[in-house]
Amino acid sequence: MQQLPSRLLDNVVNEFGKLPGIGKKTALRLTLHMLNQPDNEVEAFVSAISQMKTDIMICPECHNITETEGLCSICADERRDHSLICVVETIRELIAIENTGQYRGLYHVLGGRISPMDGIGPKNLNIDSLERRVQENTIAEVILATSTTIEGDTTNFYLFRRLSPFGVPITTLARGLSVGDELEYADEITLGRSILNRVPYNSVKS
Amino acid sequence: MQQLPSRLLDNVVNEFGKLPGIGKKTALRLTLHMLNQPDNEVEAFVSAISQMKTDIMICPECHNITETEGLCSICADERRDHSLICVVETIRELIAIENTGQYRGLYHVLGGRISPMDGIGPKNLNIDSLERRVQENTIAEVILATSTTIEGDTTNFYLFRRLSPFGVPITTLARGLSVGDELEYADEITLGRSILNRVPYNSVKS
Repeated sequence: MQQLPSRLLDNVVNEFGKLPGIGKKTALRLTLHMLNQPDNEVEAFVSAISQMKTDIMICPECHNITETEGLCSICADERRDHSLICVVETIRELIAIENTGQYRGLYHVLGGRISPMDGIGPKNLNIDSLERRVQENTIAEVILATSTTIEGDTTNFYLFRRLSPFGVPITTLARGLSVGDELEYADEITLGRSILNRVPYNSVKS
Repeated sequence: MQQLPSRLLDNVVNEFGKLPGIGKKTALRLTLHMLNQPDNEVEAFVSAISQMKTDIMICPECHNITETEGLCSICADERRDHSLICVVETIRELIAIENTGQYRGLYHVLGGRISPMDGIGPKNLNIDSLERRVQENTIAEVILATSTTIEGDTTNFYLFRRLSPFGVPITTLARGLSVGDELEYADEITLGRSILNRVPYNSVKS
């Protein structure tokens, strides 16, 4: 990589370069951008990150993030349906589902998915606490909402086997064509499965 | 944009989103990455930026960055050729030229290029100080190394007119085909100009 005229600059480039999806060239661009910003702008950037790291806590129930001690705003919300648990990989998926406005139950954040290639097994995920929640509460349904990848499917299957003994209904997200998909451009696997898993026209909600 | 479950998180997403080329989705990804990093990693990131902002100074001679009071490491280097000035738009181009290892003279960082569309005129750039350097020192050659864009060419032309009265030789970077270019894929303007500006075979340095 390029030699930089300053070690201080070099440090910042290295730090930016550690972020996911940021290569060395982009890191340098971001660093020089920072260098050109007024001091108060940079101060705001830096303190927002510091404050987030110090002040954000994890919900002891669902492992969502929270700004206060104890339950997160979702678990603490009495108007939500406490008999539904939607299992997601990370907070990112929780946020995505929340933004659909279609779900009013609780969540359970696994903290990842089973991926032997990355050395992540069931023990590295928040699965014991999920099992405990299913045992200790009256749960009407557990919705498995992991990614539709091999690792996501593996995780789904593992969770299904772990939770089945408790007799709780277990569902998973509908799979098929995306809204707005042109049939001719849909990938073969999705299209093939959407034929195999076709549903009565009248049962489709939109 | 998405509703986030935490204002602290939201702040960081906004700050990342202000960086050039970082959209809201990437900003969220970077924010959650930060949230998952160990405290000392985040501390290193934050303090590298803070330290850079506090400790980096600008060279009074060429406007390059420096970590010490006074001249930058390039201007202070007695082994470099002090009769050559290479004029660049920003530190980024200075770094790029330094990394070629082909140049041992000094630099002059303009701080941008003339761009009426962005409201940047000659007065916003470090041109007066360049004129002073040419007047006050024995300069053998000024190399104009701005971008090969319309704004870069405009800046070049302006600098040429400003510096010509001092009788100093003014050169600009060679333009033509890039090393490794396939002729059939070269853009027409570059190819056309490289025919017009063809040079004796024996004069080419490689």
